[in-house]
Amino acid sequence: MATLWRPKSSEPPPATTAKPKLSRQLRQVREQLGDCAREAGGQVTARTRAAGLGEAYRGLEANGKLEFLDLLAKEFGPNPKATAHAHAAYAESIGTPNEWKFEMDLREAVISPRSRILTQFNALPDGLKFLMDLRADLLRFQKDHADLAVLDQDLKAQLTSWFDVGFLTLERITWNSPAALLEKLIEYEAVHAIQSWGDLKNRLDSDRRCYAFFHPRMPLEPLIFVEIALTSQLSSNIESLLDEHAPVHCTEKADTAIFYSISSAQVGLRGVSLGNFLLKRVIEDLQRDLPRLKVFSTLSPMPRFRMWLDECLSGKLDHPLKVDDFKKLAAATGGRAGRPTLLRVLRDAAWSEDAVLAEALREPMTKLAAFYLLRVKKDTAPADPVARFHLGNGSRVERLNWLADRSAKGFAESYGMMVNYRYLPDDIEKNVESFTYEGRIAATSVIQRAAGM
Amino acid sequence: MATLWRPKSSEPPPATTAKPKLSRQLRQVREQLGDCAREAGGQVTARTRAAGLGEAYRGLEANGKLEFLDLLAKEFGPNPKATAHAHAAYAESIGTPNEWKFEMDLREAVISPRSRILTQFNALPDGLKFLMDLRADLLRFQKDHADLAVLDQDLKAQLTSWFDVGFLTLERITWNSPAALLEKLIEYEAVHAIQSWGDLKNRLDSDRRCYAFFHPRMPLEPLIFVEIALTSQLSSNIESLLDEHAPVHCTEKADTAIFYSISSAQVGLRGVSLGNFLLKRVIEDLQRDLPRLKVFSTLSPMPRFRMWLDECLSGKLDHPLKVDDFKKLAAATGGRAGRPTLLRVLRDAAWSEDAVLAEALREPMTKLAAFYLLRVKKDTAPADPVARFHLGNGSRVERLNWLADRSAKGFAESYGMMVNYRYLPDDIEKNVESFTYEGRIAATSVIQRAAGM
Amino acid sequence: MATLWRPKSSEPPPATTAKPKLSRQLRQVREQLGDCAREAGGQVTARTRAAGLGEAYRGLEANGKLEFLDLLAKEFGPNPKATAHAHAAYAESIGTPNEWKFEMDLREAVISPRSRILTQFNALPDGLKFLMDLRADLLRFQKDHADLAVLDQDLKAQLTSWFDVGFLTLERITWNSPAALLEKLIEYEAVHAIQSWGDLKNRLDSDRRCYAFFHPRMPLEPLIFVEIALTSQLSSNIESLLDEHAPVHCTEKADTAIFYSISSAQVGLRGVSLGNFLLKRVIEDLQRDLPRLKVFSTLSPMPRFRMWLDECLSGKLDHPLKVDDFKKLAAATGGRAGRPTLLRVLRDAAWSEDAVLAEALREPMTKLAAFYLLRVKKDTAPADPVARFHLGNGSRVERLNWLADRSAKGFAESYGMMVNYRYLPDDIEKNVESFTYEGRIAATSVIQRAAGM
Amino acid sequence: MATLWRPKSSEPPPATTAKPKLSRQLRQVREQLGDCAREAGGQVTARTRAAGLGEAYRGLEANGKLEFLDLLAKEFGPNPKATAHAHAAYAESIGTPNEWKFEMDLREAVISPRSRILTQFNALPDGLKFLMDLRADLLRFQKDHADLAVLDQDLKAQLTSWFDVGFLTLERITWNSPAALLEKLIEYEAVHAIQSWGDLKNRLDSDRRCYAFFHPRMPLEPLIFVEIALTSQLSSNIESLLDEHAPVHCTEKADTAIFYSISSAQVGLRGVSLGNFLLKRVIEDLQRDLPRLKVFSTLSPMPRFRMWLDECLSGKLDHPLKVDDFKKLAAATGGRAGRPTLLRVLRDAAWSEDAVLAEALREPMTKLAAFYLLRVKKDTAPADPVARFHLGNGSRVERLNWLADRSAKGFAESYGMMVNYRYLPDDIEKNVESFTYEGRIAATSVIQRAAGM
Repeated sequence: MATLWRPKSSEPPPATTAKPKLSRQLRQVREQLGDCAREAGGQVTARTRAAGLGEAYRGLEANGKLEFLDLLAKEFGPNPKATAHAHAAYAESIGTPNEWKFEMDLREAVISPRSRILTQFNALPDGLKFLMDLRADLLRFQKDHADLAVLDQDLKAQLTSWFDVGFLTLERITWNSPAALLEKLIEYEAVHAIQSWGDLKNRLDSDRRCYAFFHPRMPLEPLIFVEIALTSQLSSNIESLLDEHAPVHCTEKADTAIFYSISSAQVGLRGVSLGNFLLKRVIEDLQRDLPRLKVFSTLSPMPRFRMWLDECLSGKLDHPLKVDDFKKLAAATGGRAGRPTLLRVLRDAAWSEDAVLAEALREPMTKLAAFYLLRVKKDTAPADPVARFHLGNGSRVERLNWLADRSAKGFAESYGMMVNYRYLPDDIEKNVESFTYEGRIAATSVIQRAAGM
Repeated sequence: MATLWRPKSSEPPPATTAKPKLSRQLRQVREQLGDCAREAGGQVTARTRAAGLGEAYRGLEANGKLEFLDLLAKEFGPNPKATAHAHAAYAESIGTPNEWKFEMDLREAVISPRSRILTQFNALPDGLKFLMDLRADLLRFQKDHADLAVLDQDLKAQLTSWFDVGFLTLERITWNSPAALLEKLIEYEAVHAIQSWGDLKNRLDSDRRCYAFFHPRMPLEPLIFVEIALTSQLSSNIESLLDEHAPVHCTEKADTAIFYSISSAQVGLRGVSLGNFLLKRVIEDLQRDLPRLKVFSTLSPMPRFRMWLDECLSGKLDHPLKVDDFKKLAAATGGRAGRPTLLRVLRDAAWSEDAVLAEALREPMTKLAAFYLLRVKKDTAPADPVARFHLGNGSRVERLNWLADRSAKGFAESYGMMVNYRYLPDDIEKNVESFTYEGRIAATSVIQRAAGM
Repeated sequence: MATLWRPKSSEPPPATTAKPKLSRQLRQVREQLGDCAREAGGQVTARTRAAGLGEAYRGLEANGKLEFLDLLAKEFGPNPKATAHAHAAYAESIGTPNEWKFEMDLREAVISPRSRILTQFNALPDGLKFLMDLRADLLRFQKDHADLAVLDQDLKAQLTSWFDVGFLTLERITWNSPAALLEKLIEYEAVHAIQSWGDLKNRLDSDRRCYAFFHPRMPLEPLIFVEIALTSQLSSNIESLLDEHAPVHCTEKADTAIFYSISSAQVGLRGVSLGNFLLKRVIEDLQRDLPRLKVFSTLSPMPRFRMWLDECLSGKLDHPLKVDDFKKLAAATGGRAGRPTLLRVLRDAAWSEDAVLAEALREPMTKLAAFYLLRVKKDTAPADPVARFHLGNGSRVERLNWLADRSAKGFAESYGMMVNYRYLPDDIEKNVESFTYEGRIAATSVIQRAAGM
Repeated sequence: MATLWRPKSSEPPPATTAKPKLSRQLRQVREQLGDCAREAGGQVTARTRAAGLGEAYRGLEANGKLEFLDLLAKEFGPNPKATAHAHAAYAESIGTPNEWKFEMDLREAVISPRSRILTQFNALPDGLKFLMDLRADLLRFQKDHADLAVLDQDLKAQLTSWFDVGFLTLERITWNSPAALLEKLIEYEAVHAIQSWGDLKNRLDSDRRCYAFFHPRMPLEPLIFVEIALTSQLSSNIESLLDEHAPVHCTEKADTAIFYSISSAQVGLRGVSLGNFLLKRVIEDLQRDLPRLKVFSTLSPMPRFRMWLDECLSGKLDHPLKVDDFKKLAAATGGRAGRPTLLRVLRDAAWSEDAVLAEALREPMTKLAAFYLLRVKKDTAPADPVARFHLGNGSRVERLNWLADRSAKGFAESYGMMVNYRYLPDDIEKNVESFTYEGRIAATSVIQRAAGM
C-alpha cells in the first residue's frame, strides 16, 4: 500500500504529544480520499487505504478533525454537471418505456463519493465504533458549521442501514456479563446515574432485569438499554427502587415490571430510532419468561415540567387550576388561594421539607402535571420529550406520582413529580395510530379529569 | 395490525396446493405496500406489516411473484415532480453557500419508496435470506422483463450495504461443523460436485481446509466458500485431490496451499464482490496457522478455453502456433503439420485414451492455452471469467497442466487443461494495480514465452 | 522426562506395520509403571510418564495389550503384609476412641497402586476416552482371563466416579449438531440401525427428538442416547416411525412421546448406570418444552421372548394358554387346538405372510407375551433385559403390539411382537419402590388379565 | 419422595431466623442417611433424597452441622465384622489363583457407606460447591474433633478424584470476564489484597495476565489463580507492580513474566494439589502466546523469615553471619559489630525510614535470608512454606530483594524482604527430582555464596 501521510504506528502515541493539525498534509489527504472514492487498486487496497486514513483521523486534534470533515463534505459531493445531465434525461423519459433506465442513472449520479469513502472505514477493526464516534464529532461541529449537515446526511443514512433493528440482538445483561460491558452501563446511564459497582450490582439483582440492543460486531457496546424492576405493584417512588439496602423481591410473585430508566448509549446514533423496538421486544421477552407479569409500566421523569410550570405561574401561559384547587394550599400557608401563592411556595426550596406544605401541593401540582402532559404541545406532539417517546410508542398516561423523585435533579426538572406510562400489550398498536394520525393521547380517566378534559 | 390479504399460516401449505396468483388481490397489496412506504402506524407496525407481505410473497406462484415485483418496481419509484423541483433548486444553488441544503433535498427526493419497503422485509425472522431469494427471483425475471432492473438496483444497493465485508465473519468449516451447514456445501459446490457425505468428509480431512464467509444473522448459510488442499508441491491434477482413498498428507510438512474450488453460494448476491476479500483473509489465516506454507495457488478450470479453441481452429481467430509446434502431432498421426490435423484429432474423443496422441498434444495445447489466457480479451480484460477473477485479485498465471481434469466436464470446457494461478503475498497489490490500470497480466516467463510474448 | 521404552511419534504408525508385542520390553514397562505408582519426580512428571505409557499401549497389538493389562493387574495390587498389619490394628481398635485412625490406615492400605496409575492416564489429551477404551479391551479379555476382574474393579470404580451423572450434561441432538457427532449416532445405534445420512436426518426432523448424555471433556462423544417420536397416539408399529417418506407430524399437536430407541454408546461404561437418569431428565425437558405432551412411552423390543417361547412350546416350561385360546388358530389351520399346532405354525416362516394365520395368532401370542413379561423371572426380576430396565425405572407395561416389527431381527427376537412401557410421571417413584422391594410389576389391567393374573 | 424432616423451601430463610439444631430430628436424619446408603427406591430417588438432606444441612447452625457430620462419621463407617471376614479370606488366598477375588471382596468391604452418601450430594444443583463447603466446615470442626478425620478422608478422596487436573480447564481471566467471577478474585486474593474494582482492572490490564483453573461444572468459581506482570526485567519491588498509576508496559517488548500472586481459592480443596499443574500450564500458554518471553519468575513473600530471624537473633539458632558482615551496620549506628546491634536496630521500626540504616542492613539481611531459604529446614524440606511450594515445583532461588515489600504485612512477615523463584523450563524436571529425592535446593551461585555454601 502506498504510504499514508501519517505513519500508522502499532502503538498509540503518548498522550502528551500535541495532536497534529491537518493543514500541512491537506493535499495528501485529499489525494488519498480521492483514491478511496475511485477504489484505485481494487477494493481490497481501497479498504486498507481507508483504514489508514481512519487511524490518522483518530490521531488528529479537534481543528484537524474539523478540517478533515470539511474536506470530505465540500470536495466529495456529487458532480453537479453529471447530475444535471442525468436529471434532464430522466425528466424527458417520464412516461416512456425507458423511464426506469434514466431513474437508475439519476440515482447513481446523486450518490456522493464521500458516501463510498465512509463505507470503506468499515474495514477498520472497530469500524462501526469509529463511524459512530465520527458522527458524534460531526454533530458537535455542526453547531458552528451547519454546512457539515450534508456529510451527516450521508453518514446517518449509512448508519441507519447498518443498525437496522433486524440486525440487532436483544440481550439480557446480568451480573454475569463481562465487566468491560457493565463498566459501560455505569458510563452511559443517562437517567439515574449509577454511583458504584455496588449500585450496579443492585440494579442487576434477581428482582431486576436489564436489557440492551447490541450489534453483532460490537458485543461489548450496548446501543440502548433499559433497566427494569419487578414488583408487586406500580412503583410510585424512584428512591426505593434505587436503594441498595431494600429487600429483594420474590420474582415468582411479581406481577408488575417497572421500566425505570432507558438510556441511549451512543451519541453517534442520534436519530436512528431503536427505543420503540427495544420496549416491544423486552415486553415480549418478559411475558415469555415470567408469565405472571400483568402490568408493564415506566416510572418516568418529566424533564421540562418545571420549566413550563415556572413560565405558566408567571402568568404567561394557560393552566387548568381553579380557585378551589388552591384552597388547601392557602390554608396551609395563610396566603391567598391563587397562582402567586403557589409560585411563592415553590420558589422557596424549604417546602419539600415541610410535610403539610408538601401535602397541600399534591393536588394542584398533580392537576398541573396532567394538564402539562395531555395539553401542552409543541407543534402537534406533547412538549415533554419523554412523553413524546412513550406515547408515540403506544403507552398511556397511567398515574402521576407526587414527590417520587426527591433528588436535586428531580426537583430541578419537575419539583419531584414523576409519571407512569403504562404499556397495555393489546392497546399498543391502536394507541400508536391514534397518536400519530389524530394526535390523541391515551390516558386513564383519572388523569383526563385532572387535566380538565 | 390490519389483516393481510392472505392469512399467514403457522404451517407451510402442502406442496400440491396451487399457489395463488396475485391479480385479484392486487388492490389490497398495493394499499399495504403504500402503508409500508409511509410507515403508517409507526415503524414497529410497518415492520409487522412488511413481514406479512413477505410471507404472502413466498406463498405465490411464479406469475404472482412477477406481478408483485412489477408492482413494486413501477408504482413505488420516486416522485418525478418532487424530483424536478428538488433538482431545479439544487442546480440554482450551485456555488452558493447553501448548496449543501439543496444537495440534501435532492438526494432525499430520489430515494424511492420501494427502497424503504425492501428494508422493512428485514423484519422477517429470516429477512436477509428472504431478500437474497427475492433478488434471485428478480434476476431470473429480468431476462424477459428488463425494466425490473430499477427495482434490482434498489435491492442490490441494500444488499451491498448489508453484506459489506466488514460485517462478515470468516470461518473455517470442518467435519465438526453442523450437518445442516455441511449439507449446504454439497448443495452449493459449483466447481467439482460433491458426490456424497464420504466425499465431503474427505474434503474436510486433516490435510484440507475449507473457509467460508458468513453473515452473523445467518450462521448456517455460507455466502462464498473455498476448498483448499495442503500439499508439498503445486498440484497438477484435480482427480488426485478429490480421490477419497488417497493417503492423508502430513499437515506439518505441507508448504503449499492449493485453492481447488471457490463457489459463490448465493445467486441473490450476484455482483456483490466477496471473493477477493475471501482469498486475502484466507491466505492471512493460513499464514498464521501454518507458517511453513510458502506457496498459495489455485488449481483452476478454464471454462471457455474449448469454446475459443474450436472457433480458432476453424480458422476464424488468430492463434500463436507455428509449423514446428505441430511436428510431433504430425508424426504421431501421420497427418500434415497444421491446424486441420489438430482439429481432426480433437474432434475424435478417442485421443484422450491414446497416450502417444495425448502426449503429442501437450505442447501445442499448452501454447494455445497460454495464448488464450494472456492475449484473448473481452473488452480490455481476459475473456476467461475465472482468469478475470484471479488476475483481478492480484495472482499471476503460474503453470498450465495438461490433462489435469479428465472428467466429462473437464473435457467439455477445456479439453482437460487446468491452470494454477499463484498468489504471491508481496506482489498482490502491485499486480492488482497494473491489471486494473494497464490491463497487464502477470505470468511466469515460461508462460509468457508459451503465449508468444 | 525419562525416555519411554517406545518413542512417542507425532504421527500414528501406518496401519500395515505389525503392532509390537510387549514381552521384550516388559521389564522397562514394569519399571515405568512403578515410577507412576510412586509418583517419582512429582505429580507433573508422573502424569507425563503415564501419558507416554498410554500412547505406547495404544500402539500394541492384542497380545501386547493383554500382557500389559495382566502386568497391571498382577503386580500392582495392594501389599498383603501391610494390609494384614493394618487390619490387625483396626480389628483391635474397634470400640476404642481411636478406631477412626485405624479405619483410615486400613483403607489406605487396600488402595491398589494400579488404581493410582489408572488415574494418571487422565493426563492424555483424550484420557477419558482412553480409559473407556481400555476398559472395553479389559471386558473382552476377561472372557478368557477372569482374573483381570480385579483390575476391572479398580477401573470401573474410577469411571463410575468420573461419570457420575452430576457431571453429565443432557443435550438435544439435532440436524444442526456437528457432523462428527452425528456420525457416531450412526455408528452406535444399537436397536434400529441407521441406514444412511438421509435416515438420520429423518430421525432428527421437527417431529422427532434425540437426547444424549455427554461428559464435558468429550463434547463429541455421546455416552447414551434416546430417539423419540412425537405423535398423536401410542405407536404400535416401528416401521412407520422409521419410514423416511412418512409425512412430518405437527409438533404443536402432538400429545405423545414415543421413546423408540435407547442406545448405550460406550462398551467401556458397562455397569455404570446412566439410562434411568437419562429418561427422567428427558421427560422433564419434554414437559417443559412441549407442555401438551401427556403420554411418555417406549416402543420396545422383547429380545428374549422367542427364545423363551420356543422352549416353552417344546413342553419344557409353564405357559398360560387354555384350550379356548387355540380355537381360532385351530380353525385357521385345520389342526388341533393345542401347543403342537402353534409350534408347527410358528416354525414355518410363511405364517407372517398369511393374513388369516397372522390374525389367528394375535390372541395366543399376546397372552404368551404378557405372561412372559409379567411372570417369567430370572432370580426375582423379569427375564427380559429390556423389561428389567424399564420396569426398574418405574414404568408400567402398557400395551402389546402384535407384528409391530416385521424386520428379520424382529422375527428372530420376538416373532414381531413389541411392547409399550409407559412412564406416568406421578407413578414412577412408587413403581420403582414396589418393583425393587416387592418384585411387583406395574401393568394395565388388560395386560394383567392377558397374563392370567 | 418421602417427606424430608425439614421442608425444602424455594426461597432462602430470612437471615435473622435462628438456624435449627439437629438433635430433635436426629432419628429422622439417621434413617434418611441410611436410605441413601442403601439407595432405597433406586438411584434416582436416592439422589433426590440426598439433595433434600443437603439443603437441610445448609439450613443448620454450627452445632447442628457438627452433629450431622459426627453422625455421618460415626455411624456410616464400614462393618467391622464383614471387614474381618473379608480380610481373613483374603489373607488365606494369598498366593493362590483366586487371590484376586478376595482382594476385590476386601476392597468392597472397606468402602464406607458414608462415601456413597457423599457422592449422592453431587445431585444438588451446585453439588460440587456444596461438597467443597462441607469440607471447609469439616476442616474447621476437626481442630476440636480430630475423629472427624475419618469422614474427611472419604470426602477428600472423592474431591481428589473429581478435581483431577485432567478435568480442569485453564482459563485466562480478563476485564471481559463476568463480573460475578471477577468479584470472586477480589474475595479470594490471599497474597496482596485487591483494594477496589479499579485495582482489579489494573491487574487485568494489557501488560498483565491472570489465569485460573476451573471445573466445567463451576464456570464462575476459580479454584486457584495466578496473577502475572509482563515486564522487561526481573521485578524487585511489589509496590510498583500494584501501582494503578504506573504506566502500562508494551507487551510486545516484554521478555519477563513475573508471577506475583498465587491464591488457592477454595479452603475445601486443601491438600488437593493444583498449583504445580497450574504453573506448568500457564508457562506453556505464555510461551505460545508471547514467544519473546524468556524469563518466568515469581516475586514471592517469605512469610516466616521474620519469625525465624527474631528467634535466631535472640541467640537461639544458628546463623551464617561473620563479624565483617556487621561492619557497615556498626558504622551506621555507632554500635558494635554483632548480633545485638542488628537486633536492636530491627526492633525499632524507624530504621526503614532511615536510608543509611536501611542500606547498611541490606548485606547482612540478604545473607540471613539466603541462609534461611537454603538451610533452614523443617524435617527435610525448607521451613518456609512458599519456598517449599516453588522449589518443589522445580524453580530455583534466583534473587533476594531487600525492601521489596514496604507494606505493614511485608514488614511483619519478612522485614520487607522478597524473593524471586525462577522457573527455567528446561531445568524444572531435574530440579523436582533432586529436590524430592535428595533434598537439594536449586539456587544461583550468588545466593549459594550468600548462604555460606
